[in-house]
Amino acid sequence: NQELLVDESLFFTGNGYIGARGNFEEGYPEGFNTIRGTYINGFYEIIDVEYGESAHGFPDTAQKLVNVFDAQTIDIEIDGDRFSLFQGQLIDYHRELNIKSGYALRDVEWISPKGHHLKLSIKRMASFECLELMMTDYTISSLNYSGPIRVLSSLEGDVSNYTDPKDPRVASKHSKLLKISDLGIFKDMAYMIGSVLRSQLEMGVTYAHSIDMEYRTKGTGIEGESIIDITEGASLSFTKYVIYTDSIRHHKVQEDGALILQNAISKGREFWYSSQKAYLDRFWSTSYIEIFGEEGVEAAINYSIYQLLASAGKDVRSNIPAKGLSGEGYEGHYFWDTEIFMVPFFTLTNPAIAKNLLRFRYETLSNAKEEAVNLGHKKGAKIPWRTIAGSECSAYFPGGSAQYHINADVAYSNIQYYLYSSDLSYIRDYGFEVILETARLWLEIGHFDELGRFLIDGVTGPDEYTAFVNNNYYTNAMAQYHLEWTVKFSRMLQKNFAASWQELTLKLHITTQEIENMEQAAQKMFLPYNEELGIHMQDDSFLGKKEWDFKYVPRENYPLVLHYHPMYIYRHKVLKQADVVLAHFLLDSAPEEVIDRSYHYYEKLTTHDSSLSPCVHSIMASRINDPEKAYHYLVKTLRLDLDNLHNNTKDGLHIANAGGAYMAIVYGFGGLRIKEDGLHLKPTKPHRWSKMVFPMQYQGALVKVTLEKRILIETDQPIDLWIDGKLCHVESYLEVPYHGKH
Amino acid sequence: NQELLVDESLFFTGNGYIGARGNFEEGYPEGFNTIRGTYINGFYEIIDVEYGESAHGFPDTAQKLVNVFDAQTIDIEIDGDRFSLFQGQLIDYHRELNIKSGYALRDVEWISPKGHHLKLSIKRMASFECLELMMTDYTISSLNYSGPIRVLSSLEGDVSNYTDPKDPRVASKHSKLLKISDLGIFKDMAYMIGSVLRSQLEMGVTYAHSIDMEYRTKGTGIEGESIIDITEGASLSFTKYVIYTDSIRHHKVQEDGALILQNAISKGREFWYSSQKAYLDRFWSTSYIEIFGEEGVEAAINYSIYQLLASAGKDVRSNIPAKGLSGEGYEGHYFWDTEIFMVPFFTLTNPAIAKNLLRFRYETLSNAKEEAVNLGHKKGAKIPWRTIAGSECSAYFPGGSAQYHINADVAYSNIQYYLYSSDLSYIRDYGFEVILETARLWLEIGHFDELGRFLIDGVTGPDEYTAFVNNNYYTNAMAQYHLEWTVKFSRMLQKNFAASWQELTLKLHITTQEIENMEQAAQKMFLPYNEELGIHMQDDSFLGKKEWDFKYVPRENYPLVLHYHPMYIYRHKVLKQADVVLAHFLLDSAPEEVIDRSYHYYEKLTTHDSSLSPCVHSIMASRINDPEKAYHYLVKTLRLDLDNLHNNTKDGLHIANAGGAYMAIVYGFGGLRIKEDGLHLKPTKPHRWSKMVFPMQYQGALVKVTLEKRILIETDQPIDLWIDGKLCHVESYLEVPYHGKH
Repeated sequence: NQELLVDESLFFTGNGYIGARGNFEEGYPEGFNTIRGTYINGFYEIIDVEYGESAHGFPDTAQKLVNVFDAQTIDIEIDGDRFSLFQGQLIDYHRELNIKSGYALRDVEWISPKGHHLKLSIKRMASFECLELMMTDYTISSLNYSGPIRVLSSLEGDVSNYTDPKDPRVASKHSKLLKISDLGIFKDMAYMIGSVLRSQLEMGVTYAHSIDMEYRTKGTGIEGESIIDITEGASLSFTKYVIYTDSIRHHKVQEDGALILQNAISKGREFWYSSQKAYLDRFWSTSYIEIFGEEGVEAAINYSIYQLLASAGKDVRSNIPAKGLSGEGYEGHYFWDTEIFMVPFFTLTNPAIAKNLLRFRYETLSNAKEEAVNLGHKKGAKIPWRTIAGSECSAYFPGGSAQYHINADVAYSNIQYYLYSSDLSYIRDYGFEVILETARLWLEIGHFDELGRFLIDGVTGPDEYTAFVNNNYYTNAMAQYHLEWTVKFSRMLQKNFAASWQELTLKLHITTQEIENMEQAAQKMFLPYNEELGIHMQDDSFLGKKEWDFKYVPRENYPLVLHYHPMYIYRHKVLKQADVVLAHFLLDSAPEEVIDRSYHYYEKLTTHDSSLSPCVHSIMASRINDPEKAYHYLVKTLRLDLDNLHNNTKDGLHIANAGGAYMAIVYGFGGLRIKEDGLHLKPTKPHRWSKMVFPMQYQGALVKVTLEKRILIETDQPIDLWIDGKLCHVESYLEVPYHGKH
Repeated sequence: NQELLVDESLFFTGNGYIGARGNFEEGYPEGFNTIRGTYINGFYEIIDVEYGESAHGFPDTAQKLVNVFDAQTIDIEIDGDRFSLFQGQLIDYHRELNIKSGYALRDVEWISPKGHHLKLSIKRMASFECLELMMTDYTISSLNYSGPIRVLSSLEGDVSNYTDPKDPRVASKHSKLLKISDLGIFKDMAYMIGSVLRSQLEMGVTYAHSIDMEYRTKGTGIEGESIIDITEGASLSFTKYVIYTDSIRHHKVQEDGALILQNAISKGREFWYSSQKAYLDRFWSTSYIEIFGEEGVEAAINYSIYQLLASAGKDVRSNIPAKGLSGEGYEGHYFWDTEIFMVPFFTLTNPAIAKNLLRFRYETLSNAKEEAVNLGHKKGAKIPWRTIAGSECSAYFPGGSAQYHINADVAYSNIQYYLYSSDLSYIRDYGFEVILETARLWLEIGHFDELGRFLIDGVTGPDEYTAFVNNNYYTNAMAQYHLEWTVKFSRMLQKNFAASWQELTLKLHITTQEIENMEQAAQKMFLPYNEELGIHMQDDSFLGKKEWDFKYVPRENYPLVLHYHPMYIYRHKVLKQADVVLAHFLLDSAPEEVIDRSYHYYEKLTTHDSSLSPCVHSIMASRINDPEKAYHYLVKTLRLDLDNLHNNTKDGLHIANAGGAYMAIVYGFGGLRIKEDGLHLKPTKPHRWSKMVFPMQYQGALVKVTLEKRILIETDQPIDLWIDGKLCHVESYLEVPYHGKH
């Protein structure tokens, strides 16, 4: 039962625009829990945020991903019995997600209560070529039955979002968001238009089938019915075409839906399966990771990669929700996860998608500027900690808006994209404005002390088990990088695009003084360091905190956030996730010994209560030459959802963790870093793997990295890159020695 | 209009058990704002607390003071016109609160629209002798009318609490709390019983009149009607007796109400007025402050003192709400204000009331122990930041539950009570248990560092413009005093009450080790001090914060809490109220120069956005020999509500500020301190006052202190006390020189 809920997430069908949970078309019996959901990326309602005690600047409203009309339901009736896995006799059952062809499949062999023996093959696909299209295919074979089979295919309008008042990670209110505003039934199709009151958005579902159906309203939905004769030994099949449209992307929600549906039907199911395959062939050619020597890892890592693709918005109006499009956890909000844990995969393998994801912050920059004013600042932009449409939705600032580091995270991802692609025109057109406006906040919240050091007070770092501190190392170090690059880009643009630079300075009111202040702040940035331990301090006061009693606290009290008052946690030397360690990974500029000592110091204090933690520890274990430990953390990362380790996979997959799994391979074992002087690799691997291969798209070249007994680089265009600290030119093929264990 | 709302608070009628706002009996015209309210101290409903994002340990529910049935309404009808100040012709109007006799009065001379000329005298009193009794007297004199006058006297059951969604200091929801559960009408009286759903409390109002009335239900209430003839030149009068009872204090809400009513009527109005006067004569004999040489100050200070009396709960089940019983601000909650700003007045002048107020924390100690567990602690008690029935009602921990100093504040007030009264049996029976359980939390949240210092992390001090800091000086210094006295009391009890001590150690599981740990923590308590400035630092990081731009920020942006996001405020060197300065006042143990320098340093950074701030600055200005500045702050304190300086007097009087006004005189100008070696005085006064007199009740003696050209001490029993640092024995009269300016 609980497993079914988890499978609904694991087998979700998505393409980054739509996502449908892996609910059974025929449903479950009464009393079984289900979160029946379909989502459109970026389609939200505005809800009120309540506070026991509010204060100035707390958001009054938030956005919430809407569970849209449910077109999943298909019922098969044979001789008066409805097909269900929970009645009759289940002979054989197989469920899979085919990541190479891009569909989910259920193969069932079943004997009905009256003894009719059937095989059903149910395939579901969200097309990457036509993002509005979701297709469900039934093939039914009769082994001992001849007679009519009744097919009922529904579109349900009475849908609600999931609530759970007991779990703070899930919403507890605002379940009924979508209303039916129009509905139409025709001979060969039907549609339903829904609207949400406050965001004033509309969405529509238009659907039809490859077989004749009689459509009628039923209750709060539409039902199509067809009766088809089958004979013993024969098969029948049909396809349900469902088109989702919405008023964010479509000028006319209903008419566009009908047109796209006609096109989908006219091309037919085979076309869509093969175009799906072709799309994925291209995708995997730059993304597929091979692992030899151990069963299961390759499947798990590529499963993660597929979910990244299936969840990533493909336009600039949407991004990647924390749970992808696989569930409603965190109300469908976009966090810093995108830029730090998910964009890197796309940057390396699918730069076009990466660019869209990054542009989302540009498109919503006016909201971020408003939020900066709301927070008391005179200028600049504050990226919302959680959002769908761009405005801040965080209702708990110590673990939300106080995470100013998100400004640097967004900038960092833009800078990395630039360094990898050399696409300065992207920086000119979009990136710089975001980078500059967000950099301005460092001058707003930071200040120079009497020793001339630049200090940043009152922020929360990535480790949410410590809140609202002064001089969080991660924040300061990332802000320093952010400020340095703001200055660099301003000079590069000035030099390379003088006219555009002129426009930008006017539009953004940039002065030479401001750029100099940024340079000064970057140079004088205070980075807390403890001489005695030889480590970077997480913040000014972290090392002076009370020790966490790791021995005393029982296993069931983790994650701490569910069992202790935040104040109690904040007062202790305990981490939810990597903080200094994450900065050391991203910036890769601290001295070797400091990186090494810091890793060992903080690792002991980290609970990994965040799904973003093990992957970073895996990357950094590789970095400090401990591939076996890196492997241990990789396994935690890969199994997180597959084994429901955080006990909340039912609310959706941890997509940032999926991105982290990719990074644990490529940044971790691959030792990949994107730096100002080029691309760096420093491969290593756990001894149980005989061979590891990963591809990428670097400056237009398709590059494949293989680590076996030696390191092999293959490329279809000449490239330069650093291997183990040495700059190498690769015409098409290069082999260098591997110094690690085999 | 706004003035009427403010007057409703200023002229409220209360006795510590009931409080009725000074609403006009006859109401205002349509469209006028009013907060029509009557409250029973400690009578609350439980309401849900909502959070946009909740976390473990946040309170799910809170208590809220209930606006109970409204028995204020009396209408006078003459020749078809209703008496109202807003129609007809108002010839003369006078309103007063008579603090010596204990009633509120309105004298009106009025000509009705039809030309009938009347004088009305309306007196209202909440009896200090019979706490359940509220009495309203009408005397109507006719100047030119003969004929019938119709009197309508109501009891309204449809009452709601006040809400204002725009002001965070006022509730925005939960207005309808009380339901009528029973109602009875008899020939000579009527009653109504109300119940609140979740707290399961009941309250009742029983009422009758000195004249015959016909009672009937009307709408959602009861109306009594009487028609009385009046002749030109003659007068008529009547009294309305209203009895409030509740299920917290009364076994049978209805029957008890009827009995008390019978008794009240049988004794008659004159009895109650004279017993009120007798009560207040006794009260003022130990409390009344005389100021010569300036008009108005004496009246204002004694007005404040009267409101303290009118708001203070007279049993151990209630305390003093932040707004007394004069309004609904802060939802009727009790805060640290009681112990630090209000109990001192009672300790000095009315020890019996002080003892009850202190015992409230003993009666609710089990809730405080539960709250300690809720906050993650293994033992001890955490006094709730705001409460009515004992459990924590704070929904914003950085400015609420994080104020652990409330534990020390409660202990401090108990210790001061003991030092002043020498009542060790109170400590044995009640005080010690509270002091010990609350002291335990210092060992829970504090810890020793590698230098052996005892540190306290993650608390908010009294200054709420800085939150969740480490080593807040106020907290650490108060905790030190608290721990020291816990140790001292444990030894005193052990020595003086061996058997009781034995019982206590068993009941509270006290070990010698624990007491030694407390002693150790007190000795090693870290008190942040800045060498360069020679001041105590508000906390570890306060001095390193960004400067607040006092020049740039316009006047209308104060109070900051209404105009800036908390994070923005927290990041700056700006205070809402005295913090270090308050500790220096309460503990009076820092070196002179540190007190002086700290005062001047922090004063410049303080906005006094809290009503608790000017009074402390007044006290400490006296302390550093600047009585003129002290006078300036005293005036601010005295005018706060009278001139509605914080623009929220409509929600109730700032009763802690009233207590602060008293303290500014007695602790400030009087220089009074209660120390282990006895009572200290160090009088001073502003030059514009020729003479200042204040009485007190010290160790059973009635003591009067006069400061004129010399310092005079009069006492009805021999006492010892310190004057200007010299120990003096006073048989009955002592005169010593005054060294200040005259």
